[in-house]
Amino acid sequence: MFYGGDYNPEQWGPEVWAEDVRLMREARVNLVTVGVFAWSALEPSDGTFDFGWLDAVMDLLAGNDIAVSLATPNASPPPWLAEAHPESLMVGRDGTRVGVGSRGHFCPSAPAYRDRSLRFARTLAGRYASHPALALWHVGNEYHAECFCDLCDERFRQWLRDRYGTLDELNDRWGTLMWGQRYSDWSQVHLPRPVRGRVNPARELDFSRFNSDVQLDLYKAERDALREATPDLPITTNLMQYFRLNDYRKWAPELDVIAYDSYPDPAQPAALADAALQYDLMRTLGGGAPWLLMEQAAGAVSQWPLNLVKPPGRMRLGSYQAVARGSDAVMFFQWRASRYGQEKFHSAMLPHSGRSSRTWKEVSALGAELAALDRISGARTEARVAIVWDWPNWWAVEGCYHPRHDFSYKDTVTAQYRALWRRNVPVDVVSLDDDLSGYRALIIPNQYAITDAQRAAVRAFAEGGGHVLISFFSGIVDENDRVHPDGYPGGLRDVIGGHVRDFSPMPDGATVEVDGFGTGSCWQDDLVAETAKPLAAYPDGRPAILDHALGAGSVVYLGTRLDEAGFDRVLGTVLDRAAAGPAHPAPDGVEAAVRQTATHRYLFLLNHTDSPVTVRLDRAGHDLLTGRDHRAGDPLPLDAAGVAVLEQDLS
Amino acid sequence: MFYGGDYNPEQWGPEVWAEDVRLMREARVNLVTVGVFAWSALEPSDGTFDFGWLDAVMDLLAGNDIAVSLATPNASPPPWLAEAHPESLMVGRDGTRVGVGSRGHFCPSAPAYRDRSLRFARTLAGRYASHPALALWHVGNEYHAECFCDLCDERFRQWLRDRYGTLDELNDRWGTLMWGQRYSDWSQVHLPRPVRGRVNPARELDFSRFNSDVQLDLYKAERDALREATPDLPITTNLMQYFRLNDYRKWAPELDVIAYDSYPDPAQPAALADAALQYDLMRTLGGGAPWLLMEQAAGAVSQWPLNLVKPPGRMRLGSYQAVARGSDAVMFFQWRASRYGQEKFHSAMLPHSGRSSRTWKEVSALGAELAALDRISGARTEARVAIVWDWPNWWAVEGCYHPRHDFSYKDTVTAQYRALWRRNVPVDVVSLDDDLSGYRALIIPNQYAITDAQRAAVRAFAEGGGHVLISFFSGIVDENDRVHPDGYPGGLRDVIGGHVRDFSPMPDGATVEVDGFGTGSCWQDDLVAETAKPLAAYPDGRPAILDHALGAGSVVYLGTRLDEAGFDRVLGTVLDRAAAGPAHPAPDGVEAAVRQTATHRYLFLLNHTDSPVTVRLDRAGHDLLTGRDHRAGDPLPLDAAGVAVLEQDLS
Amino acid sequence: MFYGGDYNPEQWGPEVWAEDVRLMREARVNLVTVGVFAWSALEPSDGTFDFGWLDAVMDLLAGNDIAVSLATPNASPPPWLAEAHPESLMVGRDGTRVGVGSRGHFCPSAPAYRDRSLRFARTLAGRYASHPALALWHVGNEYHAECFCDLCDERFRQWLRDRYGTLDELNDRWGTLMWGQRYSDWSQVHLPRPVRGRVNPARELDFSRFNSDVQLDLYKAERDALREATPDLPITTNLMQYFRLNDYRKWAPELDVIAYDSYPDPAQPAALADAALQYDLMRTLGGGAPWLLMEQAAGAVSQWPLNLVKPPGRMRLGSYQAVARGSDAVMFFQWRASRYGQEKFHSAMLPHSGRSSRTWKEVSALGAELAALDRISGARTEARVAIVWDWPNWWAVEGCYHPRHDFSYKDTVTAQYRALWRRNVPVDVVSLDDDLSGYRALIIPNQYAITDAQRAAVRAFAEGGGHVLISFFSGIVDENDRVHPDGYPGGLRDVIGGHVRDFSPMPDGATVEVDGFGTGSCWQDDLVAETAKPLAAYPDGRPAILDHALGAGSVVYLGTRLDEAGFDRVLGTVLDRAAAGPAHPAPDGVEAAVRQTATHRYLFLLNHTDSPVTVRLDRAGHDLLTGRDHRAGDPLPLDAAGVAVLEQDLS
Repeated sequence: MFYGGDYNPEQWGPEVWAEDVRLMREARVNLVTVGVFAWSALEPSDGTFDFGWLDAVMDLLAGNDIAVSLATPNASPPPWLAEAHPESLMVGRDGTRVGVGSRGHFCPSAPAYRDRSLRFARTLAGRYASHPALALWHVGNEYHAECFCDLCDERFRQWLRDRYGTLDELNDRWGTLMWGQRYSDWSQVHLPRPVRGRVNPARELDFSRFNSDVQLDLYKAERDALREATPDLPITTNLMQYFRLNDYRKWAPELDVIAYDSYPDPAQPAALADAALQYDLMRTLGGGAPWLLMEQAAGAVSQWPLNLVKPPGRMRLGSYQAVARGSDAVMFFQWRASRYGQEKFHSAMLPHSGRSSRTWKEVSALGAELAALDRISGARTEARVAIVWDWPNWWAVEGCYHPRHDFSYKDTVTAQYRALWRRNVPVDVVSLDDDLSGYRALIIPNQYAITDAQRAAVRAFAEGGGHVLISFFSGIVDENDRVHPDGYPGGLRDVIGGHVRDFSPMPDGATVEVDGFGTGSCWQDDLVAETAKPLAAYPDGRPAILDHALGAGSVVYLGTRLDEAGFDRVLGTVLDRAAAGPAHPAPDGVEAAVRQTATHRYLFLLNHTDSPVTVRLDRAGHDLLTGRDHRAGDPLPLDAAGVAVLEQDLS
Repeated sequence: MFYGGDYNPEQWGPEVWAEDVRLMREARVNLVTVGVFAWSALEPSDGTFDFGWLDAVMDLLAGNDIAVSLATPNASPPPWLAEAHPESLMVGRDGTRVGVGSRGHFCPSAPAYRDRSLRFARTLAGRYASHPALALWHVGNEYHAECFCDLCDERFRQWLRDRYGTLDELNDRWGTLMWGQRYSDWSQVHLPRPVRGRVNPARELDFSRFNSDVQLDLYKAERDALREATPDLPITTNLMQYFRLNDYRKWAPELDVIAYDSYPDPAQPAALADAALQYDLMRTLGGGAPWLLMEQAAGAVSQWPLNLVKPPGRMRLGSYQAVARGSDAVMFFQWRASRYGQEKFHSAMLPHSGRSSRTWKEVSALGAELAALDRISGARTEARVAIVWDWPNWWAVEGCYHPRHDFSYKDTVTAQYRALWRRNVPVDVVSLDDDLSGYRALIIPNQYAITDAQRAAVRAFAEGGGHVLISFFSGIVDENDRVHPDGYPGGLRDVIGGHVRDFSPMPDGATVEVDGFGTGSCWQDDLVAETAKPLAAYPDGRPAILDHALGAGSVVYLGTRLDEAGFDRVLGTVLDRAAAGPAHPAPDGVEAAVRQTATHRYLFLLNHTDSPVTVRLDRAGHDLLTGRDHRAGDPLPLDAAGVAVLEQDLS
Repeated sequence: MFYGGDYNPEQWGPEVWAEDVRLMREARVNLVTVGVFAWSALEPSDGTFDFGWLDAVMDLLAGNDIAVSLATPNASPPPWLAEAHPESLMVGRDGTRVGVGSRGHFCPSAPAYRDRSLRFARTLAGRYASHPALALWHVGNEYHAECFCDLCDERFRQWLRDRYGTLDELNDRWGTLMWGQRYSDWSQVHLPRPVRGRVNPARELDFSRFNSDVQLDLYKAERDALREATPDLPITTNLMQYFRLNDYRKWAPELDVIAYDSYPDPAQPAALADAALQYDLMRTLGGGAPWLLMEQAAGAVSQWPLNLVKPPGRMRLGSYQAVARGSDAVMFFQWRASRYGQEKFHSAMLPHSGRSSRTWKEVSALGAELAALDRISGARTEARVAIVWDWPNWWAVEGCYHPRHDFSYKDTVTAQYRALWRRNVPVDVVSLDDDLSGYRALIIPNQYAITDAQRAAVRAFAEGGGHVLISFFSGIVDENDRVHPDGYPGGLRDVIGGHVRDFSPMPDGATVEVDGFGTGSCWQDDLVAETAKPLAAYPDGRPAILDHALGAGSVVYLGTRLDEAGFDRVLGTVLDRAAAGPAHPAPDGVEAAVRQTATHRYLFLLNHTDSPVTVRLDRAGHDLLTGRDHRAGDPLPLDAAGVAVLEQDLS
């Protein structure tokens, strides 16, 4: 079980380093991420390197049994590069070329940047390949950018030629005959720079694909360079919550281990449910393998309009939530709080107020606790339920000029996920391109864009005995935002056993009764049942929910957005059919999750409420945190923000 | 009576065309607008034309007795033009040159654009001048743009030289001595590009005039080219609601028939009153001649933040509203819903869900109904009341750094118009430059900018026996936003019989009692009666409304914004003096409007409420929709959203 | 006592000038500001001057005993300069170069601008140096700008080299190792132009310092040129309320007399308390010497979203407020309302509606009154209390990525000042670099950034017998936004007698009880008392306020934002210790302030309420406005908005 954080020794001197290492040991830190922003400190001018201080730090860490996740510092190229190569700076959609002074200011296509960041990665790898501290490569930092410069423009054209072959195909895919934009030469095709009014959504959609690929390509180039030097060392980069620009499903196979930065907002009550969704996503992206919580905050962050401190015990609770859902690490940004800069008020393991702070007490206590949980490393989670989270669909549905422009894909998925989370049902977070054969229930919140293969997969899933819950405005367009022929919802018609004559957003605040399932809002399908049966109707008799027996399984189609209780009821119907129950029974507000090995099951009970609660155990277990044994049926008490980790024998 | 919509066959193939024409006949479509966005499909590269598919479509339509409104496709020049001539692209006020990917992206001054769009118009006209389908020319689409490029800059200088002759005159008109901006050479005069803080309002005002002229000039150039080829065919372009940039009063004389696109928002309760205002404006712009409802939506549109579907019966009701107020056409954007692009969720006569949809049922039923109303074509409406809607005043009052910066001219005029609409009083929508001799009452909502001639016209109108209702902040400045001398309201002092010592906006939410007329808000004049008598006073005794007998007529001046009932009361006073009553008595929420020919009067009764109502007829009539005869005094029942069109004998 | 306003005769002709002077005499005007925006009227082309009209105006004014504050018109360079030298135009942060058409559009570094504005100042000074009307030089107008052009960029680098000497020092001060921005050559250092995300706060902070210096340098260059021509004439420029960009503490020593433009908003109830703060600041900036109210509005202004008129009597009341707090002038923008331009609806002494207006009556009556107050000129005010208002701290705290991004330094200081104002306690507005020896109490609202010298000054102040009230988030960083070592609040720990373990913003709307001091909101320190005693605690027992006896004085530290009554109570504690009482007892809403000479005390009583009130006098006095004598203990009646100015014998 890794414990530690980002460590930026270049901001401090040798005396502080010595104190750092002493305190790291006190807090049981065993892994630190070094070098993320050290490029300008390591290569002060073009081709001149100064690794002296890093050598010292690496040796010091190795000497204290602290492993290093060594970063390639490409997220912040040095000022000398910008000065000598202005074309290496990112250009915003509005044409503004940004300057130095923050981070992430590079163009992903500029040779000046690419060559030098690769050279740096190779130099770094060459120098530390055999260093005893080196345990993991951390490539760049939180890739997430768009550039609209001429170099990227040229690359976009090439990417499109590779994808579509002919200009006729491009014109067809993008529907350029709408508003008269048919291209007659490849030179006319450009990035979606500013237009008058609204841009062609298919072009924007392909730009999103392209952009994710461009960023991934940066990662892969460095990954390959590092691998050459250290063929056996794992390589990763840190992913982020709700980072819309990157299709992480295309990224995940390129990472040896999934690493994730988690920043749930203490000011948002739903933040921990959303964090759970992301953890389940990370676990699914890694094929079920354990992942690494690479960053979190010990207290407050500094990037939001209002940056609340985590109340006592909540940092610990959130850390166990990550472990419960598959993480084999608890890491922080950062080890020691910076004295200056944009993030000086971002909390740290070792805050400005030092060892006297509450933060340090909680951080060092957690380190000690986690050291006893090594046996959990590698344990995995089985889920019978999957929910769909799909980047191209996200881009498509929010870029399509939706009937309700403020429609949020993220809010839609998270609302449905929260219903699963409240039920403590183990769930994977998939796309319809994934192998679905292991699941019994499939929740499809809003699959506006759907390919033919995906439609076939949904049908096959149900026919094979799976149970599907699919919500409105799904199955409308293909992968290029072109409406599927033959009415709504395109080829899903046979899957849902009915069709939608018309749809309409509902005015803000308007609701409609759904017989037996509370009220609907946001949207209303004008729905016609064909081979399906109505499961619930509106007061005017038109169906609100369809229920379609299909092969050995079923498909429930939901034509409106139900209130929380109503959605829970329809979800319950589907889960019951799939026999998908909770990881463990628990009172409201208590999260229960399991990981297991060949021999043991680890049950995590996390009390998110502000009051003590009691959980009655379904079987005997040994609490790894208290060291106490509990019998089956025993009432296990949990303090407010309390945690139990029960080891249960599988034999 | 024309029925049909925009038709974009280039988005489909011959098989679909065949189905289109079959279904057009089923829906009784007799006119379609073709080619609006077809430039890139018809001229795939510079000077290379491909009219094959259009020939086929034109022949197919002609063969099925469907007439064509043929469009010059200048609204969306092809990508090849932008690529070869970047200077043909529009530049925004902030200096950003837009790209291809939406529409309307051209610079109106670039020779590369102007030459090629004219060449295209001539080529099109040459090819189809004698085609049997051709019934109408549709020039461009919804002209409405601003360009700030250097070519337009040069043209602005020339426009100003033409207008003002000398630089001294320009300096005087623009008041450049304020904040020290006196020009000493023409080269120093520019478009109102970004300044620090607030720009000279007189310069901005002249830019608005210039810009409207520049757009109109584009229209006229193509119009002239088309006229050369087909001297007898009518030519138009489609106007829009509340399009602030174009002074349609200067445009209207250049159109052979007024064409108008109407998009009342189903989410806005007042949208239909506002639609009525626009219809009355269109009728007035055409000198009382019938106009063409060139576009409307069959259901939802897609450009708003929330795009509601029109409820059952409401599309029909809205269509009859346009006909009642002078339209001889009911047309839609568009015939067949697009599969792709920015407007794929804009409704169509033939939606994605095809013939099974409610939309198609309503569209095809309306087509059948309208086919029976041909006898109404050409019938006109007489109005004794006029309300002023004036573009230069709009520009001036909202650009003058108004004491209340959020002041909305549109909201002011529409609020007063709605009071007329609720009374079902026939009304024309005029400017003070129009011939006012036919009217008995004149409503002037807020004529901040007024020329000497306009002031004389108002005085002459009243002296000649007319009755005027004029509201606060009128008569303040001349046509160059220069305050009229001698206090407020400039030379209107003798017209209103008093003066304003000072004026002030009222704080948000504040109200002041107006004796006998409810409450005032928004604004309060410090008003002094001279030859007028106070009609109502504030609690402190100062007059709120003046009433001035002037020659054979009267002028009522209103120094605040009254609430709805209060305004209705003062309006009633003026209308009573003018003997201006409703078209027909009707219950609340029922719109009554008349058109008449030499022999017949057509009374339209439109029930905008959600309940059935009964209207007692003032004279006998024959309902053209039901075919039933009704006697005078008969109670005529109207369903919710119901319509009656009564033909009444004028003899 | 000066009375008058800005006078722009170039907007009018000789006939109007004659009327102007006649009416000025009627209103007892004795000083007018001429020429502020007259550059383009006086130098119509490069090097060609036309002083004819100004000669005539100056002579006319001199002949009527009206003195002139003559302005150098550099705030609005003529269009010919922009046309010939585009580099003389200001560039915004986003890179947009602004154009002519407003004002203040110049680059402060462009030689073309600097040379010509200096040449103009010299020419003006040479021509009018001995003119009998000339009484004061008014340099430019309301300096307040930022320019991001290449010329300013070059200058910023030079300014930084001068300030820091070496690049290593700059890197250290700016903390460039955070996010990897270490500079290796001076050429890499630039203005804080757009970056991706958030810019380095230390760089932004130094930019603010640089920018204020750049603007001040403009002033000083002209000041020096004028002084050469008229060594004995006072020179000033007009300062503004809450002008964030200029550190007026560095400006004040360069002005011979402080001049200030005051625009309290009639729509803001707190505006007059804020005006009082500014007046006290202006007096303090001038070292206690009388200052000049250089501009105010007679009625409404025009730059706000809602521009209310001042109610009857309120312009007079506000004028006396300025005099009460040290002004020896009551001046307006402007004398005669403009007919055109951006400010035509800004009120004037002589409005569009002329002598019949209420404004004119009030203006001319005030002129007559003030003429009797000449004996007050030069009288000064003694304050035992000082409150801190500090520009670098303002820049730092709002630019530091504050835990609550919407934190407003201005709101924090003004809220605390208002408590002093409600108590009618005479107060100076200082920085911690000022000589504090004359004060007994020191209010430090929020001194986030504090230098070592400032920390020492606070400690010395308390040890010497002063009493300090210091609020949360003080003493956190140094002058380069680097967190002071050793926990919060850096070196203030020994001053407050405790430390802050952690701090956190509170959610919007959240409050916490503070025992005996009402409720706290906005912020909560996790505070630990060391040598201090807790003065009040939160319900959980942690201290909310510390009270620290220090030498002969005391320091109260406030760890949250108290409600109004709570803050007043803690303030009262500190003021009582300092024996700092009101200028004169007065009922709520009545402002009392004093000025005094060697022989007399002038007590101003200003009734800000809407009702008559009575004030019982503490000693005998002669009311200069009514001419009546009042005995000590007499009840002095004040009308709503009423004013009394009592001359009291000091012997």
